Amino acid sequence: MRRLKIIGYGRSKGNELYQFKKHSRYRVSKTQSHLSLAVEAVQGALNKADLSINDVDVIVYASAVGFQPIPCSAAILSEGLSTDKPIPCIDINTSCTSFVTALDIMSYMIEGGRYHRVLIVSSDIASIGLNEDQKESYELFSDGGAAFIFEKSDDDQGVIGALQRTWVAGVHDTEIRGGLSSLPASDYTLDNANDYLFDMQGIQVLSLVAKVLPEFIEELNQVGGHCLKDMDMIIPHQASRALSMMMKRIGIPKGQYIDIVKDYGNMVAASIPYVLCHALDEQLVNSGDKVLLLGSAAGLTISGLIIKL
Amino acid sequence: MRRLKIIGYGRSKGNELYQFKKHSRYRVSKTQSHLSLAVEAVQGALNKADLSINDVDVIVYASAVGFQPIPCSAAILSEGLSTDKPIPCIDINTSCTSFVTALDIMSYMIEGGRYHRVLIVSSDIASIGLNEDQKESYELFSDGGAAFIFEKSDDDQGVIGALQRTWVAGVHDTEIRGGLSSLPASDYTLDNANDYLFDMQGIQVLSLVAKVLPEFIEELNQVGGHCLKDMDMIIPHQASRALSMMMKRIGIPKGQYIDIVKDYGNMVAASIPYVLCHALDEQLVNSGDKVLLLGSAAGLTISGLIIKL
Repeated sequence: MRRLKIIGYGRSKGNELYQFKKHSRYRVSKTQSHLSLAVEAVQGALNKADLSINDVDVIVYASAVGFQPIPCSAAILSEGLSTDKPIPCIDINTSCTSFVTALDIMSYMIEGGRYHRVLIVSSDIASIGLNEDQKESYELFSDGGAAFIFEKSDDDQGVIGALQRTWVAGVHDTEIRGGLSSLPASDYTLDNANDYLFDMQGIQVLSLVAKVLPEFIEELNQVGGHCLKDMDMIIPHQASRALSMMMKRIGIPKGQYIDIVKDYGNMVAASIPYVLCHALDEQLVNSGDKVLLLGSAAGLTISGLIIKL
Repeated sequence: MRRLKIIGYGRSKGNELYQFKKHSRYRVSKTQSHLSLAVEAVQGALNKADLSINDVDVIVYASAVGFQPIPCSAAILSEGLSTDKPIPCIDINTSCTSFVTALDIMSYMIEGGRYHRVLIVSSDIASIGLNEDQKESYELFSDGGAAFIFEKSDDDQGVIGALQRTWVAGVHDTEIRGGLSSLPASDYTLDNANDYLFDMQGIQVLSLVAKVLPEFIEELNQVGGHCLKDMDMIIPHQASRALSMMMKRIGIPKGQYIDIVKDYGNMVAASIPYVLCHALDEQLVNSGDKVLLLGSAAGLTISGLIIKL
């Protein structure tokens, strides 16, 4: 086990409520931004930990899409947090599972003594990149942020095991193609405008996830030394309305996982940490619990991480 | 020491030669792309290691700018490399020092037994984002790529120490503001076109680096347990023509560092690993040598990593 504990967490969401039948979605208002969601989540985490930003040893920004191409988003966030110490700023990105990957990586750096106290922040505002003609994704996403502060622990708690796999067969199933080097902003026209928007082939993604998830879970069980049934709670990425179907496919009963897709939708990389905040606030998970963070991401990546709280 | 060794490396550069007085710059031809530079560098590294891409345990893409906003660039690269195993794909970004940060991070994961064989790839094509009106940066950059394969070592070699610091005072001195959430491609007009191009306030960057570098080096010496003078060679980021001035400022004599700015310019994140490839090919560094990778990046970030080859 790589020993660490949560000492603070916070979350944020868009102020504008959208209703799609019985589903609620939250999107940024004019007074909010991608950056303000990240800052608000961090301030919540710092308040809970009773710390200032200068007390953290590294700022890791773990989101699908950044604020701007250069510099890295963690540096932009650091400015937004008014740091006055040269805290190292790093972006880690595996799309929707960025938070899981960042925690996985940072658990090794905490264990190795490199960083004692780590801030990991995810925020994404899908709303600016959605295509109204793709109803399935247009009605799925919310804008949100979540931040966690982790610290070295001396107790029997921390990351028990983790696994990531990326199947490139799904690389073009979930994309924003335009905005960086492959299709620069200067090539933007009304004709290719959709290439700069989020494009998800939902059925293809579901089909690939359904195919590879059982083998992934089997491998994760070996790595983590735990069967799924030993988990006190599973915090899945709120990928789609098909979440319960996918959980059923790998034999996870209702009650052992959290599904709040109806209430909040998919917050891209912020989803998993947002749901973990929700679970902590609602005491759906408690100290000593074994919790599996599990998600799929554009790539197609699947990541799982078992943490003992 | 976190034990690891280089088992393969490769590099690539643009095919089009540009001359600015006595300085040579290389930029992608019509048959090349950002992705093709990355693929070429990896193929060189795999050939040298006598491995196939399926023999690596993780693909880390460590560059300033990605191919497209979603999915992560490592996944796009993985497709370009025709992987047929679900190798995990991760992007790590600290702008120009991304390679140093990625090696720093991965040394902990190798040490912790998570990944045995790690591919780290940097490639950047500044040429598509340069502003011809900013002569200083327009004449500075080349397009390039570099890839390294690292493996767990049983011998007395590996990462001795590393340090990263980010001073947000410099966060707006080096930027590409447009293309992602803060200024989306859909907002592109002829009037704000420059906001989508590389914008460097060279004098401000130099001034901040000159101010903070001595304190950074002092801290690095404590972390690494080594004085600069004990280094067999220093591989600096080829940040600008002022490289020799900056090396002089921290007391590094000519001959102890590599300056090929005249020959290749600044390749953004690919610079440091490209120069390391050059140093290995030219036998400027050899097995057993202590080498310091040292660079500044947009942020402003400074990163240093001491590796015993």
